[in-house]
Amino acid sequence: MLPRPAGGLLFCADALVAGVHADLSLVGLDDFGWKAVAVNVSDIAAMGGRPLWATVTVSGPLGEIDFDLLYDGVLSAAAEYGCAVVGGDLTSAPTLVVSVAMVGDASHPVAGPSPVLRSGAGAGDTFFVTGPLGRSAAGLELLRSGRAGEAPDLVAAHRRPRARLAEGEAARAAGSSAMIDVSDGLGLDLHRLADASGVGVLLEAVPVADGVALAGGHPETMALGGGEDYELLFTAADPDMVRQEFATRGLRNPIRIGTVVADPKERRLRDAPLPDVGWAHR
Amino acid sequence: MLPRPAGGLLFCADALVAGVHADLSLVGLDDFGWKAVAVNVSDIAAMGGRPLWATVTVSGPLGEIDFDLLYDGVLSAAAEYGCAVVGGDLTSAPTLVVSVAMVGDASHPVAGPSPVLRSGAGAGDTFFVTGPLGRSAAGLELLRSGRAGEAPDLVAAHRRPRARLAEGEAARAAGSSAMIDVSDGLGLDLHRLADASGVGVLLEAVPVADGVALAGGHPETMALGGGEDYELLFTAADPDMVRQEFATRGLRNPIRIGTVVADPKERRLRDAPLPDVGWAHR
Repeated sequence: MLPRPAGGLLFCADALVAGVHADLSLVGLDDFGWKAVAVNVSDIAAMGGRPLWATVTVSGPLGEIDFDLLYDGVLSAAAEYGCAVVGGDLTSAPTLVVSVAMVGDASHPVAGPSPVLRSGAGAGDTFFVTGPLGRSAAGLELLRSGRAGEAPDLVAAHRRPRARLAEGEAARAAGSSAMIDVSDGLGLDLHRLADASGVGVLLEAVPVADGVALAGGHPETMALGGGEDYELLFTAADPDMVRQEFATRGLRNPIRIGTVVADPKERRLRDAPLPDVGWAHR
Repeated sequence: MLPRPAGGLLFCADALVAGVHADLSLVGLDDFGWKAVAVNVSDIAAMGGRPLWATVTVSGPLGEIDFDLLYDGVLSAAAEYGCAVVGGDLTSAPTLVVSVAMVGDASHPVAGPSPVLRSGAGAGDTFFVTGPLGRSAAGLELLRSGRAGEAPDLVAAHRRPRARLAEGEAARAAGSSAMIDVSDGLGLDLHRLADASGVGVLLEAVPVADGVALAGGHPETMALGGGEDYELLFTAADPDMVRQEFATRGLRNPIRIGTVVADPKERRLRDAPLPDVGWAHR
């Protein structure tokens, strides 16, 4: 039995499929296990919550896969984010699928009981992201082209994405009105947040991470559509309060990228329409 | 956000793989979805808890599978057992895998906060099962041999197994010392409960369901090793209290099948060694 948490609960689940969500000729099974946990922590982080417990079900070709290595990654990520793996299942299947479900605590010492949703953005709010984008996509491209040594930090960003747990808590404490994790690319996730909130978007800048140009593609396109960066995209009415809250907590300053506008049909990147690009696994 | 439940939490997860846990040429996708939920409810029932919420992640060949039909079964089972589906994910994969995670309430109005575990059986306790066994295995055999019409109730037991939620609560109220659901066969699950409790088993009877002989195999072997009946196997110190509690709640009387003995090495079916048979999906 698990103790009753202090506040309301968050409950999410995500499955990763080998060959769809990761190329196991380029990343390790331990990286795959890490990612399966980290993407769920990221979902909890995007609500400003804290992960408590996870279950992990693994289906895959028994005898072919080093499950110890896979679970090493699972348990490393669980330890990193303070989340206990409390159950699960291992079963035979032709393809490797790792499904993680996670329960989190929705309460927040400063912001109270209600988590941040995607749907609360209001006209005039400022858009922030917690870090520059395109790192994972660039890292994947370097791995594919056998140039991993050129930018180990980008490769690490692809192999072991970080969930922005502390940043999610800070954004919530600073009164964030809406939040989502950038899992499928800023181009898709911005539209999702705007759709859920019934607002429009004026995107003024696409923050491109250092070194993304090394990968050879168009840097802004990689930052906008690459996905899997797991930075948090959030809106807030008071930008100064956001900057102060992040500074107080010793976190990197979030990057201001645009403004929420009232008309839900208005979706612009500077003077052009905001492209609807991103990484869809379906 | 989900409301804070009254008691401690139960959290479990199980994945079903097409071709491993179900033959989709014999059962419907809706049956497969039902079963994915029911097996998790059964895990909660075996602790004497109540299901609250579920997440459902589905991976499978998009474009080939009728996901609406699958979700019909998922939602029917969720409604049947009073469990809300609160999240999940649908993603592309070569093989169909449905992974359900479930949060339950561990508290019990009569028995208090601690759920029933597998590990509490004591020497002298009585073994009960909540119903006769072999129905699912016989139903599967009838489906395979094209004789489903001969015993629709056995076929239904295979297609849409029932989780014994009310029976689990009754067993707990009657002071059950240990409990497990018979998912892999009485032959395996008895050993599991005995191993967890550090006790031995004297099994005096194997309750065979009506009609199991129709399927053509050896009835007692099918009841002992067939698995997937999802009846509950439990121990209790006071058999009269068990019978009274089930009767008061209008439930079918559980079947007394044997006695817990002190020596953990003693595992007997009448005068013979208790076979270690059952359905292992691994």
